[in-house]
Amino acid sequence: MRVYLGAGLAQALSQAFSMFRSIVCLAGGVGAARFLDGLSQVYPAEKVTAIVNTGDDLDYLGVHISPDIDIVTYTLAGIVDKEKGYGIDGDTYNCMAQLERYSAETWFRIGDRDFATHLLRTAFLQQGFSQSELTEKIRMLLGVKVKILPMSDQMVATKIKTSAGLLDFQEYFVKRKFEDNVQDVSYEGASIATPAPGVVESIEKSEVIILCPSNPILSIGPILAIPGIRNALAKTKGRILGITPIVGGRSIKGPLDRIMRHLGLEVSPLGVAQLYRGLLRGFVIDNVDKAVASKINDLGMKVVSTQTIMDSSAARARLAEDSLKLAETI
Amino acid sequence: MRVYLGAGLAQALSQAFSMFRSIVCLAGGVGAARFLDGLSQVYPAEKVTAIVNTGDDLDYLGVHISPDIDIVTYTLAGIVDKEKGYGIDGDTYNCMAQLERYSAETWFRIGDRDFATHLLRTAFLQQGFSQSELTEKIRMLLGVKVKILPMSDQMVATKIKTSAGLLDFQEYFVKRKFEDNVQDVSYEGASIATPAPGVVESIEKSEVIILCPSNPILSIGPILAIPGIRNALAKTKGRILGITPIVGGRSIKGPLDRIMRHLGLEVSPLGVAQLYRGLLRGFVIDNVDKAVASKINDLGMKVVSTQTIMDSSAARARLAEDSLKLAETI
Repeated sequence: MRVYLGAGLAQALSQAFSMFRSIVCLAGGVGAARFLDGLSQVYPAEKVTAIVNTGDDLDYLGVHISPDIDIVTYTLAGIVDKEKGYGIDGDTYNCMAQLERYSAETWFRIGDRDFATHLLRTAFLQQGFSQSELTEKIRMLLGVKVKILPMSDQMVATKIKTSAGLLDFQEYFVKRKFEDNVQDVSYEGASIATPAPGVVESIEKSEVIILCPSNPILSIGPILAIPGIRNALAKTKGRILGITPIVGGRSIKGPLDRIMRHLGLEVSPLGVAQLYRGLLRGFVIDNVDKAVASKINDLGMKVVSTQTIMDSSAARARLAEDSLKLAETI
Repeated sequence: MRVYLGAGLAQALSQAFSMFRSIVCLAGGVGAARFLDGLSQVYPAEKVTAIVNTGDDLDYLGVHISPDIDIVTYTLAGIVDKEKGYGIDGDTYNCMAQLERYSAETWFRIGDRDFATHLLRTAFLQQGFSQSELTEKIRMLLGVKVKILPMSDQMVATKIKTSAGLLDFQEYFVKRKFEDNVQDVSYEGASIATPAPGVVESIEKSEVIILCPSNPILSIGPILAIPGIRNALAKTKGRILGITPIVGGRSIKGPLDRIMRHLGLEVSPLGVAQLYRGLLRGFVIDNVDKAVASKINDLGMKVVSTQTIMDSSAARARLAEDSLKLAETI
């Protein structure tokens, strides 16, 4: 039975957790966006900072696209296409239809309204503004209270080594529908990238740092690959916890389960926790995976199990609530 | 009474005028596009070359837009918004709606399908292709038989000197709705621009050169301001004729009548013919302006009067037919 989290309860929780001065979330796309939406229900949104992966960014048809930043922004603005989890609700695809007539590449589908974001971003970047500046501009224009920061203003490109060769992230993910065998993943440019303004400061001042239920290899991996961010996390006194993106042996969305299999990792919350060993003090797993809780405990993480599938607004809030309760105890 | 030009008659005319090896048209936007459509009905389209004004081009929201080339291409492809004369028929404006939400500049309205053209053009230009190469690509993709050439692959910018200062063309034309007093018009870059590949060759080999019913100052002016084109026209043995864009003291579309008034020119076909003195051997005027025919004659131009308002497909063809008949006699 799902319990609807009424406004009164949400407010009560929001006050309950206000013991935390601020919270930082490391975020990928859909899973992270939904979690952040839940977090905004139980904790003051204006005290949350999302540090978002930009390793999936692409230049496509002359525009610069930051898929994860857009997913997070659209979701928190309440304009996301709820079914798909990305794009803008009720969008049309007429520009794409005409591009098809021109035999242009149309494997990455962009809605007409969505194009506006990419045009604006591209125009700003060309005028010398940074990715952080325009991310801030767009979230303000859309009335989003959560602070959204790209992980870096420099280019980091997630590259997928497959039996078909080295692929760009979106080529692997969208164009080839993540069907290739993944042999390795690298983050081009990450080792020389610096964190975007505010990233290190927000980690330093926050008492809670949450690794969202995103792909640890493709979404959180690029963020952790930036030395300045890794160092800040190593030094922080904040409580770092994570939420599993694997439930019952499968990824909730996307290719994580197959990638873990290809790379010889255990496809379970334990497999994910092993990737985060030494970093996390707490880990949230699904009720169906209780069996591996003790082994994750052995990695030095306190574990809580709950319902992690965010199939409703209340479920999102409940997952955020359970995560913050775990944070209180670690 | 308007006579519908049946397919049989069109074919007969097409054969009748095939005495001309090829025809070149200097073209602006809507008026030129409609005339070219008429010409395609009475003469083999694949033997027509349109040299199109690019002085109105603009960089807007990060994309490069060539309004006149698009109007000509869309019209000849049969996909133009017939009522407006520009844009794509049945287009939506969702990208614009989202841009409005972002408080971006939206005074230049672009449809969602139309955006595809600008994205493709911009992407190609950024990859080092020329304006002529991508104009050719787009017209081929849209199945247009008339050869379309930009006047130049270099940038020429029509600038409007007004009491409010020096304005870019589209700023004057679209943003400020051509309400400013025009003091002067200049074509920035024209004196050092070279004609696009094929422009001079097409003028040299054609027996008929038609100045379309476009604005002589804002649309044909930039083309004639390019030295290589002016020289080719001065040297050609081809018959050069023009069609009035002024009928009964008013411009059929756009600001020509007011501009002529501001500049102290007579707002009549005679005023237009005076601007083309020394260049044209023939001039097509409307039946309502017969009174000025003899004065245009005195400028050294043979004159024919006909119905010049292209308010139907048949009217376009009839105007083209009458123009070619005049060409036969000069």
